Amino acid sequence: MRIAILGTGTVGRSLGTKLLELGHDVGVGSRSTHNESAATWLMTQTQRPDAAATTGTFADVAGAAELIINATAGVASVGVVSSIDPELLAGKTLLDVANPLDFSNGFPPKLSVCNTDSLGEQIQRTLPQTHVVKGLNTVTAALMVDPTLIAGDHILPIAGNDDHAKGHVTALLCEFGWRDSQIVDLGDISAARVTEMYLPYWIRLMGVEGGPMFNIAVLR
Amino acid sequence: MRIAILGTGTVGRSLGTKLLELGHDVGVGSRSTHNESAATWLMTQTQRPDAAATTGTFADVAGAAELIINATAGVASVGVVSSIDPELLAGKTLLDVANPLDFSNGFPPKLSVCNTDSLGEQIQRTLPQTHVVKGLNTVTAALMVDPTLIAGDHILPIAGNDDHAKGHVTALLCEFGWRDSQIVDLGDISAARVTEMYLPYWIRLMGVEGGPMFNIAVLR
Repeated sequence: MRIAILGTGTVGRSLGTKLLELGHDVGVGSRSTHNESAATWLMTQTQRPDAAATTGTFADVAGAAELIINATAGVASVGVVSSIDPELLAGKTLLDVANPLDFSNGFPPKLSVCNTDSLGEQIQRTLPQTHVVKGLNTVTAALMVDPTLIAGDHILPIAGNDDHAKGHVTALLCEFGWRDSQIVDLGDISAARVTEMYLPYWIRLMGVEGGPMFNIAVLR
Repeated sequence: MRIAILGTGTVGRSLGTKLLELGHDVGVGSRSTHNESAATWLMTQTQRPDAAATTGTFADVAGAAELIINATAGVASVGVVSSIDPELLAGKTLLDVANPLDFSNGFPPKLSVCNTDSLGEQIQRTLPQTHVVKGLNTVTAALMVDPTLIAGDHILPIAGNDDHAKGHVTALLCEFGWRDSQIVDLGDISAARVTEMYLPYWIRLMGVEGGPMFNIAVLR
């Protein structure tokens, strides 16, 4: 599958590398065609006969892809998706892995949107013809692409309005190693609020744990 | 120990019954001395030689207690604690188990305060001479008083500015059956934000689980 990743940070690069390893064609997008982080990422990838890595502008990679992953900084994400011709994204699935963390007043960050709205919903409203699925935003990048680093049924919540798109994303998550028993469908895209609002708790737990290599499980 | 419970809802009554069983003197407080829920609760308690159950106004029970538990509805809690002479609460520990859930626009509820403030912090600012500890607000009433209903190291986060008060609360939690390994000290009272902001996630998970008898564990 041709997959576009918007954003060249740790999350975007980790997802890109893993998707290439899985045999997908990956385009990593950024504001300009001369993004140093994207160029460095591209140079470090082993080019394979079955999977091509490319870089380009957000619109370049999104237009060429069947599935788009938003891995830009949450406070910038709406601006990024707004900058792309919506026709290039119409009818496609967009997996939004970003969190609206605002570090402008230091640590711990605040959320730039919460409670009555969410980044996932903002992106869905910005792109009404695109099927937005919120997911992967509740774990650190290394766990996103290899959940087997932690044993047990730690959970990955997803949310979105379109069941077909959620199935599309679930299939991709299973390629990463997530099991169906770990993926929790919380409902429509408004449930993005609750997983984004969990992030401040995650950040406090990270402080207690001494690092980000953890996840939560539901016990009953 | 003499313990006051502010609020006569399911949470307040469950805590009161358990604390009596554990041999504490329990006063359940409400706005008026003629509260039907409090009276009904009192009638159903087995009076014991070692533990007295009483009811009264918020001020009556708080003034007589060594430890106070706020189990009023979150949107009413600041009004309730403001109505009590702060001298009656000075130097005491107040365990705040409430969540600022606003059901005025239906289900799922919104939070009446979040992100840059919390109910726990509001109560601490209202009662600067009292040691407020946030806790027990992340599980259903039945689990609060009997965590052994779920096996495994499911967690109970607490937050507060005063270590002595957190120790006081931790000792009480251990009487309920919580083990030290389950109690996670998230830091000062500003961490009340993150456990209150977890509640919308908890409510969505309750929908998926089909009921409130669950809790989260941290896997690593």
